[in-house]
Amino acid sequence: MASVRIREAKEGDCGDILRLIRELAEFEKLLDQVKISEEALRADGFGENPFYHCLVAEILPAPGEPRGQGIGSKIIKKVAEVALDKGCSQFRLAVLNWNQKAIDLYKALGAQDLTEAEGWHSFRFEREAMRKLVGK
Amino acid sequence: MASVRIREAKEGDCGDILRLIRELAEFEKLLDQVKISEEALRADGFGENPFYHCLVAEILPAPGEPRGQGIGSKIIKKVAEVALDKGCSQFRLAVLNWNQKAIDLYKALGAQDLTEAEGWHSFRFEREAMRKLVGK
Repeated sequence: MASVRIREAKEGDCGDILRLIRELAEFEKLLDQVKISEEALRADGFGENPFYHCLVAEILPAPGEPRGQGIGSKIIKKVAEVALDKGCSQFRLAVLNWNQKAIDLYKALGAQDLTEAEGWHSFRFEREAMRKLVGK
Repeated sequence: MASVRIREAKEGDCGDILRLIRELAEFEKLLDQVKISEEALRADGFGENPFYHCLVAEILPAPGEPRGQGIGSKIIKKVAEVALDKGCSQFRLAVLNWNQKAIDLYKALGAQDLTEAEGWHSFRFEREAMRKLVGK
């Protein structure tokens, strides 16, 4: 069985994190939306007041079983642990409506689809819209 | 015409902020989901590493015009200003699918409905689900 270790990300992980962001975005057919650089990931996550926190899973796959080792569940459990430690009352994930595998996993782990249950929609203001708003 | 001033929230605003959270949740028919106390709002927003930032609008309404002075637009413009200053590439809002007035406003100001356009759903893990995940 593969060995999985989940730990906090370090600044030196940013190259791998960007690669994984790109791989996920490619799967989501949204690669054109990935505009962040490794440099920005370093600055945003590892400065004085970090914009994000990140966990990474280190995996040593056993021969012949490169996938399907419950890494997703393990990471989500770790997020729950960190969230409870910090006193959070909930945490949220965004998922595409055709990503059935992820939806099934999140539901199996106890999450509720707020968009389906309560009608929440996510709205985004992009940089161009922000600039217009402030007249720049 | 009413005078509107938008400024950063202070710890002393937490009582009013909680009242406004409750008023919004009542409008959204989700008042039962508001579990936060004024004390938690103070601790979360005004400690060393704040969990949230908040802007408040101070309004001096002119007689006979208590509403409809573009306060929503003014706050969103201020959020855009703060976001650009901090180097954010975007910001997001969550809105209920039947709150047409808010949806129309956000679209008019340049936001895109990501749930409609790309199929993003919002999933929530609540405290009970988190506890089950970590075995507590």
